[in-house]
Amino acid sequence: MVYITRKEHFNSAHRLFRPEYSDEENLRVFGKCSNPLWHGHNYLLMVTVKGEPKPETGFVMDLKKLSQIIADKVLDKLDHKNINLEVDFMKGELASTENLAIGIWNELEPGINAAGATLHSVRLEETENNIVEYLGK
Amino acid sequence: MVYITRKEHFNSAHRLFRPEYSDEENLRVFGKCSNPLWHGHNYLLMVTVKGEPKPETGFVMDLKKLSQIIADKVLDKLDHKNINLEVDFMKGELASTENLAIGIWNELEPGINAAGATLHSVRLEETENNIVEYLGK
Amino acid sequence: MVYITRKEHFNSAHRLFRPEYSDEENLRVFGKCSNPLWHGHNYLLMVTVKGEPKPETGFVMDLKKLSQIIADKVLDKLDHKNINLEVDFMKGELASTENLAIGIWNELEPGINAAGATLHSVRLEETENNIVEYLGK
Amino acid sequence: MVYITRKEHFNSAHRLFRPEYSDEENLRVFGKCSNPLWHGHNYLLMVTVKGEPKPETGFVMDLKKLSQIIADKVLDKLDHKNINLEVDFMKGELASTENLAIGIWNELEPGINAAGATLHSVRLEETENNIVEYLGK
Amino acid sequence: MVYITRKEHFNSAHRLFRPEYSDEENLRVFGKCSNPLWHGHNYLLMVTVKGEPKPETGFVMDLKKLSQIIADKVLDKLDHKNINLEVDFMKGELASTENLAIGIWNELEPGINAAGATLHSVRLEETENNIVEYLGK
Amino acid sequence: MVYITRKEHFNSAHRLFRPEYSDEENLRVFGKCSNPLWHGHNYLLMVTVKGEPKPETGFVMDLKKLSQIIADKVLDKLDHKNINLEVDFMKGELASTENLAIGIWNELEPGINAAGATLHSVRLEETENNIVEYLGK
Repeated sequence: MVYITRKEHFNSAHRLFRPEYSDEENLRVFGKCSNPLWHGHNYLLMVTVKGEPKPETGFVMDLKKLSQIIADKVLDKLDHKNINLEVDFMKGELASTENLAIGIWNELEPGINAAGATLHSVRLEETENNIVEYLGK
Repeated sequence: MVYITRKEHFNSAHRLFRPEYSDEENLRVFGKCSNPLWHGHNYLLMVTVKGEPKPETGFVMDLKKLSQIIADKVLDKLDHKNINLEVDFMKGELASTENLAIGIWNELEPGINAAGATLHSVRLEETENNIVEYLGK
Repeated sequence: MVYITRKEHFNSAHRLFRPEYSDEENLRVFGKCSNPLWHGHNYLLMVTVKGEPKPETGFVMDLKKLSQIIADKVLDKLDHKNINLEVDFMKGELASTENLAIGIWNELEPGINAAGATLHSVRLEETENNIVEYLGK
Repeated sequence: MVYITRKEHFNSAHRLFRPEYSDEENLRVFGKCSNPLWHGHNYLLMVTVKGEPKPETGFVMDLKKLSQIIADKVLDKLDHKNINLEVDFMKGELASTENLAIGIWNELEPGINAAGATLHSVRLEETENNIVEYLGK
Repeated sequence: MVYITRKEHFNSAHRLFRPEYSDEENLRVFGKCSNPLWHGHNYLLMVTVKGEPKPETGFVMDLKKLSQIIADKVLDKLDHKNINLEVDFMKGELASTENLAIGIWNELEPGINAAGATLHSVRLEETENNIVEYLGK
Repeated sequence: MVYITRKEHFNSAHRLFRPEYSDEENLRVFGKCSNPLWHGHNYLLMVTVKGEPKPETGFVMDLKKLSQIIADKVLDKLDHKNINLEVDFMKGELASTENLAIGIWNELEPGINAAGATLHSVRLEETENNIVEYLGK
């Protein structure tokens, strides 16, 4: 079993808040991340896939193919977008890094399976100090 | 003459656009950076000050003092904010990295002068691939 | 199950030695790390906590809360200190990165449990080339 | 159980191709990595070993010893070499990062075992965006 | 005057040698970089352009335009290529990082001038420890 | 004129203090950096030399030669040492990063001149956020 990882980037706006809370409650719970006029991040995304290297290529999975799946299913939806307002798979979800990592996993898994590999991990760095990793259910 | 640099970070939302343009014109000129619902970045800021080390401390300027000036004059205004809507010194300016670097220079220079040092450079990394540096007029 | 990581830094002095050894024996076993007049490092600490994101916040654990626990229990004791002489939880221990990671785990675990989360990993980078990770017993 | 990691670098040339394919077929399967006149990389290698810290040193394994094993068994064979033409343990193998990580594992395991430790992982970064990890059979 | 920098990457093979030298002389002068079967690097390229931000865009120069010039004039010629054998502007030159930086400058300057900006610096990192910068004649 | 830079590392202990001050005065002026029992850093050193590439090698200066000069004159004296107590060229100096950069310049300049090149800059990163650069008198 070999693990291969592709690193990608996207830049998005978001805020953390619950619509049923007042601005004061949101500030108390979510701090400055609740700013009603948004803020944003350079997200760093690391997608890890596992499998056996194929004898004819030496690849677990062609990283260009993996990169294309990430572009189609994740980056096109998230890059230079507002996560709360524009991303279909985050509708109705709190835009936390945890929920975003789970949403990205769900976006990526079918295409990676269809390519004959297995998704192992979605790692998302919101800042260089705040990192989330999801390994599936 | 010795140059000292303090590195800081802030996370903000912005968009690039001219209000007199249509969305189509803004898209043509500014690309996906013109998204009307915003996007954002982890900005990396490097402020360089020059001077002679003082004999009694060995410091050109106490970096804690420099860090405090940056916090008061720049980070408190920019971090977790919307650059277009909430930052006083960017009112009426296009929110490009170039203009932001110039704006930050103007915010910082009086306090650094008052501390007996000379501002040499404001370097601003919008992403790890896009970097702006301003050395004053 | 989602894993969240908070990255922190501290700068400390230490030396590797056994008091019952002569300086020559310490030099032979621990190399230049045994220098009797100390040396030091910028330690990079990554603390990983696991759990389910809470529905009301989307957080496994508030990273500001995690950061506060790390500050109170670890950074206040280690930053700008001498690990051999000033750190209560390293008394009588060899100041290796391995032992330091175990000591940090023991410092952090009760507070993280009390916050309703589970400590998963303490990763400590002494230099960018020398890294230790401890996942508990 | 504690995990220790040593990070090393080597710079090599390689190409991805199957000798029974035409240049066109190799280009279709392996893309620009099939260039018949070679290309190359700064490979970053992270070797992780696990064990209990020894009471007399506080070390799982002396990182200088681990570094020496990596130099003797891996870096001397790979650094400033052509992976396809000059590396004994890659003879007859496709020079993919996956196969290279497995080959490095096989080179390192006996010496690490002989030193009383257990090899846990070989992580190899071909570029900062393309990463492979092998944890053994 | 504002300085903007675009960071790009390419992966190439090369060797350092003089054809009139024997292998032994090349080894003595250029060390392991003279390996006749090539080695390679992940080169990191930073191109800095200077000018006044334009009032209508806030840009010194559109970084997408700069990135396109770099792709057309430099990356297409160098990425996944053999610098000694395949790069037109390096024909007859020693493939040192110094000469490569000068060659890249000469490739880039006309297109950047034509775009109304001024090339300020070409910085080329062969490894993270070996860096060359050229500021023109 | 081409600039070449060699990056090196050393790990040292130090403290900032004036012997004629009380511990309280030192704490007030130098903060936690005045800890009487020392602290330390992983210093990152970047030495930049300028000159014309030599026609016979394509080098401004052989980086292995530069690296050797840095090892002999700087790293051997500083690495795993106490800057205040063990470094000859820092005797009687406040161990600030500014003074250390100037001291390193003075150590390096004669050997670089003797090698036919010109020292341009000594850049010293005490932490990733605190950086000093000295360009000579």
